[in-house]
Amino acid sequence: MDGDNLSHTQKNYAADLESIREAKTRIGPYIHTTPVLTSSTLDSISGRKLFFKCELFQKGGAFKFRGACNAIFSLQDDQAAKGVVTHSSGNHAAAVSLAAKLRGIPAYIVIPKNAPKCKVENVKRYDGHVIWSKPTMQSRESTAAKVQDETGALLVHPFNDGRIISGQGTIALELLEQVPMVDTIVVPISGGGLISGVALAAKAMNPSIRILAAEPTGADDVAQSKAAGKIVTLAQTHTIADGLRAHLGDLTWPIVRDLVDEVITVEEGEIVEAMRMCYEILKVAVEPSGAVGLAAVLSQQFREMPTLNQCKNIVIVLSGGNVDLEIIWKSLSLQS
Amino acid sequence: MDGDNLSHTQKNYAADLESIREAKTRIGPYIHTTPVLTSSTLDSISGRKLFFKCELFQKGGAFKFRGACNAIFSLQDDQAAKGVVTHSSGNHAAAVSLAAKLRGIPAYIVIPKNAPKCKVENVKRYDGHVIWSKPTMQSRESTAAKVQDETGALLVHPFNDGRIISGQGTIALELLEQVPMVDTIVVPISGGGLISGVALAAKAMNPSIRILAAEPTGADDVAQSKAAGKIVTLAQTHTIADGLRAHLGDLTWPIVRDLVDEVITVEEGEIVEAMRMCYEILKVAVEPSGAVGLAAVLSQQFREMPTLNQCKNIVIVLSGGNVDLEIIWKSLSLQS
Repeated sequence: MDGDNLSHTQKNYAADLESIREAKTRIGPYIHTTPVLTSSTLDSISGRKLFFKCELFQKGGAFKFRGACNAIFSLQDDQAAKGVVTHSSGNHAAAVSLAAKLRGIPAYIVIPKNAPKCKVENVKRYDGHVIWSKPTMQSRESTAAKVQDETGALLVHPFNDGRIISGQGTIALELLEQVPMVDTIVVPISGGGLISGVALAAKAMNPSIRILAAEPTGADDVAQSKAAGKIVTLAQTHTIADGLRAHLGDLTWPIVRDLVDEVITVEEGEIVEAMRMCYEILKVAVEPSGAVGLAAVLSQQFREMPTLNQCKNIVIVLSGGNVDLEIIWKSLSLQS
Repeated sequence: MDGDNLSHTQKNYAADLESIREAKTRIGPYIHTTPVLTSSTLDSISGRKLFFKCELFQKGGAFKFRGACNAIFSLQDDQAAKGVVTHSSGNHAAAVSLAAKLRGIPAYIVIPKNAPKCKVENVKRYDGHVIWSKPTMQSRESTAAKVQDETGALLVHPFNDGRIISGQGTIALELLEQVPMVDTIVVPISGGGLISGVALAAKAMNPSIRILAAEPTGADDVAQSKAAGKIVTLAQTHTIADGLRAHLGDLTWPIVRDLVDEVITVEEGEIVEAMRMCYEILKVAVEPSGAVGLAAVLSQQFREMPTLNQCKNIVIVLSGGNVDLEIIWKSLSLQS
């Protein structure tokens, strides 16, 4: 068989349509099927028909629960017995804690000290054991390895894992049923687990669907990686989108390289403006990372890119909603 | 036929199940069917199974569009020609503006000077003509009467109107399909249009469903009215729930008197705490008035009322999401 004739799903990626369909069956009893919202006001502003896939309504407040649930419920009983360990700035941490709780096993969560408070609270809410690390990928990984050694727990990587990618891909199975006319899917990108799963499932079912990645200019490692043809890592990132600071892994990179059609980068001000529109127009409480897809669709880059003229029916994944809003409650308590 | 044998829907109320079903057909092409969200965390906190009917995702950001749309599309062409006028602190105003725009007629909106800025912006977004009044019911009504005289526009009352009540009642038709096991519906109350429509439809379809009204202690005219057996109006109200400051009308009062099983009053701090849970756990951007139903279900009064022990499957109507959050965007812009 000639390699050039292989379809995307037959290539040797870490997941495929079949593993994503299996994930859907496995996690079906535990996850929320999240709704799709529309807004004629945002359609007018963007000049396209927009569909918002509300993964911020997923359990734990982000899409991450799909992958974590698939990974943890894929384990054999003897594999699972000593629990699981992960390192995460927040949403994956809460997701692993909740999935482990449902499976009845312990979860050890390494959290960098700069993680948002509400994300740490989510971990505690789901009975995860919090272990602090420094806010660098190196410290996160070495601390997790130490916990692994001490407890015998299994590592559940936030994105560089076929079971995680398959779990996140179930979003695409849902949205192709909910929005059959979709021609474009816009997905925030960090480590690439979400977009890899979505791209594998969506392109296998309809190869003409465009997959666009959205990332902050201050953490544009994916745009740089695509340009360089290899994984680029940044010495530091600067963005309020705290969920988008990771870099691609060796399992997500080939999928992103092959199946992501464009990477749109957005400025910090565009992220805040997109967040504002989510709250004021859609009435959803999105976190900065979750609003990056809308920011991309409203950006100058998107509007001016000739290849994107044909994007008419666009699904934007609102990926999460875990954000500290203490400032509102203080202000309202003073008024009341 | 003996009057005592008449069912609720056969009594001489301003609306009934039939008018509500007609409303559903009339407004169906224009409204959003709003989703129902659930949260196992909030189920644990409340000790009940909660279903959140997300009317804050309705067009215009509140349930009000259902009633306004039904009223305006009920008009004959010659009745509609000179436009419509209303007075409202906000959500009804935006709803009338949008429905009139869709019908292709002008909308004149009398707005009290203390209305939230975002609600006024919604009116302007839908091309409503803004006319300012003083923040009293008397000034609102006299200003609206003057506009009516000058323009020949028809008054669309915010709640004391059978077409408005019928439109709001379509929420109950949807939610009985979405949550067939519902035994209790909790609805924020102000002028009573929303709860009247919901109660008429729900009790006609299943008389055992309990209908509970929720209102702020600082605007507890409905609790006082039910206790007195007649409409009580307050000289002043004190609450951050800016949508719940009106009082009952002669068309809503008989329905509220007969069909609302209990009125739960909540303190300002309870409203802020319920709002916080909506943002942090459900990820919905509710306004203070919209969170009063959840505040009621979490209140001491609710937990301790023996008749409410049997409320197991509770639908809470999140009625609107129009709230000024400027303080967040300023804070995030400083960070970014």
